[in-house]
Amino acid sequence: MDGVAGVITSRDNEKLKLVRKLHERRWRDKLRLFFVEGEDLVAAAQDAGFEAVDVLVAGDDVEARLLAEVSTLGHPPRVVGVFRRRDSALAAEVVLALWRVSDPGNVGTLLRSADAFGAGVMLSEGCADPFGPKALRAGMGSTFRVPLTPFELRDAVALVADGGQTLADVELERYSTFVLGAEREGLPPEILERCDVQATIPVQGVESLNVAMAGTIALYERARRAMS
Amino acid sequence: MDGVAGVITSRDNEKLKLVRKLHERRWRDKLRLFFVEGEDLVAAAQDAGFEAVDVLVAGDDVEARLLAEVSTLGHPPRVVGVFRRRDSALAAEVVLALWRVSDPGNVGTLLRSADAFGAGVMLSEGCADPFGPKALRAGMGSTFRVPLTPFELRDAVALVADGGQTLADVELERYSTFVLGAEREGLPPEILERCDVQATIPVQGVESLNVAMAGTIALYERARRAMS
Repeated sequence: MDGVAGVITSRDNEKLKLVRKLHERRWRDKLRLFFVEGEDLVAAAQDAGFEAVDVLVAGDDVEARLLAEVSTLGHPPRVVGVFRRRDSALAAEVVLALWRVSDPGNVGTLLRSADAFGAGVMLSEGCADPFGPKALRAGMGSTFRVPLTPFELRDAVALVADGGQTLADVELERYSTFVLGAEREGLPPEILERCDVQATIPVQGVESLNVAMAGTIALYERARRAMS
Repeated sequence: MDGVAGVITSRDNEKLKLVRKLHERRWRDKLRLFFVEGEDLVAAAQDAGFEAVDVLVAGDDVEARLLAEVSTLGHPPRVVGVFRRRDSALAAEVVLALWRVSDPGNVGTLLRSADAFGAGVMLSEGCADPFGPKALRAGMGSTFRVPLTPFELRDAVALVADGGQTLADVELERYSTFVLGAEREGLPPEILERCDVQATIPVQGVESLNVAMAGTIALYERARRAMS
């Protein structure tokens, strides 16, 4: 039962139930909705023109303890918004194609770097949902601005840990797509053979670069040359 | 009370109590010890020559449920090691100087990039503990290999979000230290005035680069020129 002033006082309220459902990817995919936690991210979604289905403010619309219960954050947010997904109409000149990048932090970070360099992102099956709570947090609002298009390889540079041409020696101006593989497995042969060239970022240590670092360096390298 | 075969069966066992204590930074600092979760990271610490105080294997040394209880991981590790900290004797030619970078994921990721590019890392007060569990995880073993030296600014390039010289135009060969600031606040005036030059990575989007991305690009840019 909800309070007289319209403040939600029951955890069985339909709006709260919807937010809880949207913790699960299958519901996000089915309903084409996602939820956003915190004032900055809610504002970023609104600024980018996403349609708000609900915006719940602690104290005004819902008891703070109930909003805290549906939050994924340790420090509960003052605002939670539910928004409708939409298809990206825009295309970008440069795109990161992510193959089975399953870590939501990496997907979010790559969206943030794509935003910074004016690039788009393509996600294969098996990638983390960019509209899941962890990926949204890492994306810092860039998720709402970056063109997200279906996975498709054209004029593609595969970034590989070893054995490719040195990135700095590849004529990047000729290519529009950087293909990045899963953290441990990298890119499988069936993807590599659909790429025009393989490029490697030379490293010294025993550790390869994190996939988010590799993608960011590739975008930087291409942007640097476009400027000079 | 522990089992006959020497398997720890009590959560009051001193070794388990020590691991629990080491969840807190103040204990890690006081005892100069840290704990490492998972076979890969334990092996990395051993390979790097860190002295093991305890290595606890689920089933062999301790009941799996008790090891799970002292773990910070959702999926409990099979092995937890306690190691002794040591001072880095090595110096690196290129160093990332981190000013109040408080996110452990960013500190770990920067250690990983430093390792990949053969660089060292300096941490100011207020940085996340590189030997805390989250930073260790993001560091993927690089933490044990990268020279960690006291924070000191010499021949230093400050990386700033706006208003510096374009990174690609700075004579990076003349400098050995890249200075990176806290996620939101950046670098304060008292640090900037101790740097020789300010550099900016040009970005298009409304979002600045994550501090880990900025540091990685700087290391890449310097390494690229050293090769060419």
